Amino acid sequence: MAAGPEIEQLIQLLARLPGLGPRSARRAVLHLIKKKDQLMLPLAAALDRAVETVKVCEVCGNVDTRSPCSICADPRRSSGMLIVVEDVADLWALERAGVGAVKYHVLGGVLSPLDGIGPDDLSIEALLRRAPEFSEIVLAVNATVEGQTTAHYITDRLAGAGVRITRLAHGVPVGGELDYLDEGTLSQALKARTEM
Amino acid sequence: MAAGPEIEQLIQLLARLPGLGPRSARRAVLHLIKKKDQLMLPLAAALDRAVETVKVCEVCGNVDTRSPCSICADPRRSSGMLIVVEDVADLWALERAGVGAVKYHVLGGVLSPLDGIGPDDLSIEALLRRAPEFSEIVLAVNATVEGQTTAHYITDRLAGAGVRITRLAHGVPVGGELDYLDEGTLSQALKARTEM
Repeated sequence: MAAGPEIEQLIQLLARLPGLGPRSARRAVLHLIKKKDQLMLPLAAALDRAVETVKVCEVCGNVDTRSPCSICADPRRSSGMLIVVEDVADLWALERAGVGAVKYHVLGGVLSPLDGIGPDDLSIEALLRRAPEFSEIVLAVNATVEGQTTAHYITDRLAGAGVRITRLAHGVPVGGELDYLDEGTLSQALKARTEM
Repeated sequence: MAAGPEIEQLIQLLARLPGLGPRSARRAVLHLIKKKDQLMLPLAAALDRAVETVKVCEVCGNVDTRSPCSICADPRRSSGMLIVVEDVADLWALERAGVGAVKYHVLGGVLSPLDGIGPDDLSIEALLRRAPEFSEIVLAVNATVEGQTTAHYITDRLAGAGVRITRLAHGVPVGGELDYLDEGTLSQALKARTEM
């Protein structure tokens, strides 16, 4: 190897990030070295800070620098609507979409018997404990087989809790072209058509 | 933002790496947080070490943890062949290809009058000083207009130095299909055909 073991190790670690392979990790490291003061130093400092401060919220499963996280601790977020998501990335996506003063519950995955993931591997019991605080629970799991199975399982477990349970609408994505949509989405969009 | 300022800053810094955008930087940060002990801690430590140790070789322009770099300081690398490259990434690519006991000279770019890059912005004077030590100089610049202009400029400047100057062969990439090759490469490959 042309570079020292320190550089080689940095490349190997960066290559383990999603979206980066060995080739792009090398390019990234060269970029870091070229921009040492503007990028490498701040990135090293930011990572050190994140290692020290980041924790998982014990209430909802979000990641933040405090627990309960800033969403759970926000007094402006009422106990009206609880949105259940698979992953923190989905929570962040909904927050970027500006869905309002809601709270979240991160499952940490979906039921997948083939991968050996059962109800005990997800934070479903914690969800059942939180559920009575809310008037509506939106199951915003992905529209995959596993996601829908998980949604049905949670709906069954919450039966009798006296809370309204809903799911996200299926339909044509905003800006999407019908021609490129699968038949399942199109037929769902037609069934759920609304008045102009 | 759903996460704290520490996480947000980490995302923004990672998004400035080549090959990563805001979306993939968010995914990378979530991956780092999930694999805190296996990936985030070692990456933070590796970056800290790299910030402290990485330097640019004052002889050839390679990056390493010492200067002169391990290639320049390697006694098994004779002063036979000097390979001139645009960038450290090209040097690494040649080393991975196992081109043998050669030395390198990193130009730091190519001549590009439109971008205001002239001979003084590249390490051409240093190359002229090193050239007499070697018996052959291979101009392994990219096969772009700027790369070839730079190769011709260096050839002119080295005229009379009594050193053999060569360039990489053009031709069909190993494993490449003729059908997908541009006409320029094909005609060069035919001109440079060799006996079976």
